[in-house]
Amino acid sequence: MMKLAPSILSADFARLLEDVRKVEKAGCEYLHIDVMDGHFVPNITIGPLVVKNLKKENINMVFDAHLMIENPDSYIPAFAEAGCDIITVHQEACTHLHRTIQNIKSHNMKAGVVLNPATPVETLKYIIQDLDMVLIMSVNPGFGGQSFIEPMIEKIKEVKQLIDSRNLKVDIQVDGGINPKNVAKVVQAGANIVVAGSAIFNSDNIEETVALFRKNAYL
Amino acid sequence: MMKLAPSILSADFARLLEDVRKVEKAGCEYLHIDVMDGHFVPNITIGPLVVKNLKKENINMVFDAHLMIENPDSYIPAFAEAGCDIITVHQEACTHLHRTIQNIKSHNMKAGVVLNPATPVETLKYIIQDLDMVLIMSVNPGFGGQSFIEPMIEKIKEVKQLIDSRNLKVDIQVDGGINPKNVAKVVQAGANIVVAGSAIFNSDNIEETVALFRKNAYL
Amino acid sequence: MMKLAPSILSADFARLLEDVRKVEKAGCEYLHIDVMDGHFVPNITIGPLVVKNLKKENINMVFDAHLMIENPDSYIPAFAEAGCDIITVHQEACTHLHRTIQNIKSHNMKAGVVLNPATPVETLKYIIQDLDMVLIMSVNPGFGGQSFIEPMIEKIKEVKQLIDSRNLKVDIQVDGGINPKNVAKVVQAGANIVVAGSAIFNSDNIEETVALFRKNAYL
Amino acid sequence: MMKLAPSILSADFARLLEDVRKVEKAGCEYLHIDVMDGHFVPNITIGPLVVKNLKKENINMVFDAHLMIENPDSYIPAFAEAGCDIITVHQEACTHLHRTIQNIKSHNMKAGVVLNPATPVETLKYIIQDLDMVLIMSVNPGFGGQSFIEPMIEKIKEVKQLIDSRNLKVDIQVDGGINPKNVAKVVQAGANIVVAGSAIFNSDNIEETVALFRKNAYL
Amino acid sequence: MMKLAPSILSADFARLLEDVRKVEKAGCEYLHIDVMDGHFVPNITIGPLVVKNLKKENINMVFDAHLMIENPDSYIPAFAEAGCDIITVHQEACTHLHRTIQNIKSHNMKAGVVLNPATPVETLKYIIQDLDMVLIMSVNPGFGGQSFIEPMIEKIKEVKQLIDSRNLKVDIQVDGGINPKNVAKVVQAGANIVVAGSAIFNSDNIEETVALFRKNAYL
Amino acid sequence: MMKLAPSILSADFARLLEDVRKVEKAGCEYLHIDVMDGHFVPNITIGPLVVKNLKKENINMVFDAHLMIENPDSYIPAFAEAGCDIITVHQEACTHLHRTIQNIKSHNMKAGVVLNPATPVETLKYIIQDLDMVLIMSVNPGFGGQSFIEPMIEKIKEVKQLIDSRNLKVDIQVDGGINPKNVAKVVQAGANIVVAGSAIFNSDNIEETVALFRKNAYL
Repeated sequence: MMKLAPSILSADFARLLEDVRKVEKAGCEYLHIDVMDGHFVPNITIGPLVVKNLKKENINMVFDAHLMIENPDSYIPAFAEAGCDIITVHQEACTHLHRTIQNIKSHNMKAGVVLNPATPVETLKYIIQDLDMVLIMSVNPGFGGQSFIEPMIEKIKEVKQLIDSRNLKVDIQVDGGINPKNVAKVVQAGANIVVAGSAIFNSDNIEETVALFRKNAYL
Repeated sequence: MMKLAPSILSADFARLLEDVRKVEKAGCEYLHIDVMDGHFVPNITIGPLVVKNLKKENINMVFDAHLMIENPDSYIPAFAEAGCDIITVHQEACTHLHRTIQNIKSHNMKAGVVLNPATPVETLKYIIQDLDMVLIMSVNPGFGGQSFIEPMIEKIKEVKQLIDSRNLKVDIQVDGGINPKNVAKVVQAGANIVVAGSAIFNSDNIEETVALFRKNAYL
Repeated sequence: MMKLAPSILSADFARLLEDVRKVEKAGCEYLHIDVMDGHFVPNITIGPLVVKNLKKENINMVFDAHLMIENPDSYIPAFAEAGCDIITVHQEACTHLHRTIQNIKSHNMKAGVVLNPATPVETLKYIIQDLDMVLIMSVNPGFGGQSFIEPMIEKIKEVKQLIDSRNLKVDIQVDGGINPKNVAKVVQAGANIVVAGSAIFNSDNIEETVALFRKNAYL
Repeated sequence: MMKLAPSILSADFARLLEDVRKVEKAGCEYLHIDVMDGHFVPNITIGPLVVKNLKKENINMVFDAHLMIENPDSYIPAFAEAGCDIITVHQEACTHLHRTIQNIKSHNMKAGVVLNPATPVETLKYIIQDLDMVLIMSVNPGFGGQSFIEPMIEKIKEVKQLIDSRNLKVDIQVDGGINPKNVAKVVQAGANIVVAGSAIFNSDNIEETVALFRKNAYL
Repeated sequence: MMKLAPSILSADFARLLEDVRKVEKAGCEYLHIDVMDGHFVPNITIGPLVVKNLKKENINMVFDAHLMIENPDSYIPAFAEAGCDIITVHQEACTHLHRTIQNIKSHNMKAGVVLNPATPVETLKYIIQDLDMVLIMSVNPGFGGQSFIEPMIEKIKEVKQLIDSRNLKVDIQVDGGINPKNVAKVVQAGANIVVAGSAIFNSDNIEETVALFRKNAYL
Repeated sequence: MMKLAPSILSADFARLLEDVRKVEKAGCEYLHIDVMDGHFVPNITIGPLVVKNLKKENINMVFDAHLMIENPDSYIPAFAEAGCDIITVHQEACTHLHRTIQNIKSHNMKAGVVLNPATPVETLKYIIQDLDMVLIMSVNPGFGGQSFIEPMIEKIKEVKQLIDSRNLKVDIQVDGGINPKNVAKVVQAGANIVVAGSAIFNSDNIEETVALFRKNAYL
């Protein structure tokens, strides 16, 4: 079953809790937390303190932190302490990717790897067995509101094939430009967790939009 | 007259607008926005999007962004567009400090320079004439809740003397470990804008605390 | 048909226009502009201003800038404004390669990716569909006058196969150690644009040398 | 025949010569020298001077320097002068890997490439023909005393296949968590040089341990 | 006597020799060569090869290279070999400034230090005795055509006083926004070498402009 | 009374304990440990493991680690655990110098600041009150065997005056090119701890040399 991960990037940070409660109430399973440091990507968003402030509110969603930062190892303890359930790090940001994944797990969190649009799937061959999730970027990370990059459908399939060929259980998350109109092809290609930002938070009726995502996913 | 600049770092980011309204209502003049990139300082806090979300609420305070980031020039346009009124940059982060100050001003914002606790005042000698504000760190930037570093009283005096000797009008802001008990010596040394984080946001009665700051400032 | 791209690196920068007119007159189609920043490669050559000064002369060649620089995104606008027709960036220099390629195109230029000698072709799999050109380095970038690295013939073939298997139209340019004696194998492997520096600019008779390149290319 | 490369990281640096003589006497063929700069890996160990001090003692072992450093090109001359026989550099540290390998060879040393645990074998495809050795990390570089990462057996096989398919003669060295109990599978997968640190230097009887390694290697 | 140093940045790089001959013929003593790497400053200009190409023409001017680059030590040998007579490096770019100055001198060139507009004169106190020249930036380095920063007059005086108080002979060069109208105050403050770019190269009559500079300098 | 700090850089690392015992026996008070990372200085020497191996030998000297590394905060815990008694960090390497000094002290070690030859004394004005030692480099850090830079005598005096004017007790250590012939002027200028490398370790009779240092210090 497809799970939905609304991206905090499209929430209203003046009323963050309020907005998050809406997607929680609508039944979204993951809260996708976009952390940007202004170095790995050309934008600065939020850090561990914002996560911690939200976590204390007993939100019934998986706290899923997507670290778009250099040197993620330096911040893994802070995000663990802030209450994250899963951390994903970029393959392009990790010289010692195997160590970083073990580092995340040693803090009792699930661990995933993110691939930028141009990054090949070969980079996962010797780390896939240690992952809980692969996140495939279907836009370039840094900003909300971009359009889905079509060749990423092929990449989802290639990752799915890699996982199945090893008899592994690894979630496939896709992030960028997904909406009720194109969610079906993403899910059919193999994704089971779908990130959506503006499509959800900027919709007039979040519950209906979420329902539409789910209905269309398996059309 | 001393002005108060509550530091957003001690607000509750789940209910940011609500907390900011409290300090606005209590009459605080500046909203001190702590921007950290995880590179210049070992913490990541918030970026332009959070500022933009707050700005749209017509808050009646000066939006005062303290950039604890490397390469601040890259983010000055984004913070201008987000609605900042003043930007301060660290002397230690700016190889081309004069250009950075002009860059801020060219976006119709006021401009200031921040000095870390160990940084000498000599570094201001050929830039002071272009500044609207000097921010003296009385703790090491990166985290809230630290204690005031006593020798910074001497630094406030030295900066005050530099400004007066040139017949300039430059605000002196001080940030770190200031509370109603020690605010007097900070103000008497020459500061006219006082940053306070936990002392204000974590107090039981913000209005009383603000009043106490003001009363004690000129005792 | 093979096109020739004389590398500006072997021209005389005291008389740049004069030297460029020679290769223009000899019928070379591309002017290959080697931009080095002293960080991505251990040499500094020229920047946008030199390109701009040449462009104003109405030279009838494709201005083909090969950026051997870190953070190429920062300089794409300047090279666009200077008058470049195509920009190639190194795969090894671009964490967000897909964004960089879109950035080039958004300035109405053609876009290509360069591979260092040891870089595998797999890195192109999810970006090839967006490219106008692939540039295969057959020497290590940084200096003129080096010898052709033989295994690059195999790489040209692999890139050619990738392009053909997708029914794409992407130029294959090769740069380094190519001369009339070895040009045939480069072209037969699949290249259609050949960079040559000292072999052309240092020859006694540029027109004859160019003719020899063309004659030998399809022997 | 498998060769043994005791890692200097587990020797007693207060009595380095004494400890090295023990492994020399025990018949170990290579002295594996772990150079760390605190930037590529989170540890600083030793540099050229320590190597030079050892080399003057006429130790009858191959001086095999594993550079876990950024910008290895800057230090290749110093390690050559210090007396190294072979230098290995990390694929992840070398933007211009082909040049770095030629640089090592130009100083009359053998040259190898090291792969971190998550790094795919595809990265060797266009450099393998120039190598004397491939070093496969079976732990994350930086510290001694870690456990062997099982999927590296598959990587050894993949590298072996790559070498054999090209009819090349390239040594395969493996480093990390190898002891007499698991050495067999490493050797059977294709490795012919085995690094061991604590398993050798911390053993009660080095000669017996070395004999056990050799005996078990081909069980 | 004031000497003039036309900045190559304002020459036409398509006809560099031609333009340089004009300022040589007009009697300018120094050729100011602006080297930018796109990292220390946000522009890339030219490197050693351009200098070398010019030097072979027996130009009767002092080749004065102003390195606006990071890690200048890496390029000092190349600029020496290209034929520079004097190299100036930025105080802000040199962690080991004393070593860099010795490095320049060891290649038989004169050595100077450049100060950005905001950089205080205190930074010269323990290096001034080793310098042949101090270069005071009166605009922010990176581009031509900016306006003179007035407070730099005070800095020229402070440097002059430092030099005189030690009985040293050190040239004072000033660069940025100088023209025949403001040259007098620069010279009267203590400068004896004046850099001018657009004011000279873009003038209708270079010889007259040069004459005007000299006439006005001592009005 | 002057104390002597033999620099480990001139010891024989093949027989480190043996060499250290010689200077211990000769009555030297400090063991000066030169840690270089190949980034802050162009040499790599030794790290925490070498210190730890020596420390276990119960050497009766103050373990005095001079960190010539970038990001010293990252390695302070490791050097503390290795058994250092005092750590000195470079002013030029520390953006947050006050925090770094507190970091050292929080690990129960003494803390000092090192100044490169060209670095002015003004940089100490707001940190001197927290220091146990100032280390003045009288050569450029990175290698042994260089000559004493004469203007450093003036710097020693300026530091001494700063310390005395505040009624502080801070040791003044000087490192570089000191031998029995010039030790007197160093001590008379205000230094009380003298580093010497080759002058001690390379002498024929270490005890006599040490005696000569002490005798000459107060001539």
